[in-house]
Amino acid sequence: MNVEILGLIAGALTAVASMPQLIKVIKTKNVEDISWLMLVILISGLSLWVWYGFEQDELPIILSNAFAVLVNITLLICYLIFREK
Amino acid sequence: MNVEILGLIAGALTAVASMPQLIKVIKTKNVEDISWLMLVILISGLSLWVWYGFEQDELPIILSNAFAVLVNITLLICYLIFREK
Repeated sequence: MNVEILGLIAGALTAVASMPQLIKVIKTKNVEDISWLMLVILISGLSLWVWYGFEQDELPIILSNAFAVLVNITLLICYLIFREK
Repeated sequence: MNVEILGLIAGALTAVASMPQLIKVIKTKNVEDISWLMLVILISGLSLWVWYGFEQDELPIILSNAFAVLVNITLLICYLIFREK
């Protein structure tokens, strides 16, 4: 398989992976079982992957991780809003 | 910053990100608010990243994603065990 396409598929999957979690949190407004520490470490790591992608000039890495950063920041904001419930 | 070191730090962060979630699930035995679909998509995507890492011969990508696959498979197994609760 073309490695660029492989990277784009891999990136698309890891980028959208948090979407079902975000949708579930928005629907149920329950975040009790979710680890905020996971979200913080994940956002830090994904941001560094974006930087790595720029250094290596690899578009699949930049795009997928940038999208995942946005989704997980949204998830963290939802966590902060709903945790008081 | 050396790009290899940047990748290793990014990889270490995204690899360990799911650990606090796994520890929380094992402690509380509650998985109600976690999306199983997220775990399935994530495991698929991370596995493809391992493949991509081999194709590109990039050790940070291989190591971090392989570790993350293991953690998330464990999380999925915990989900399946505890969801009946």
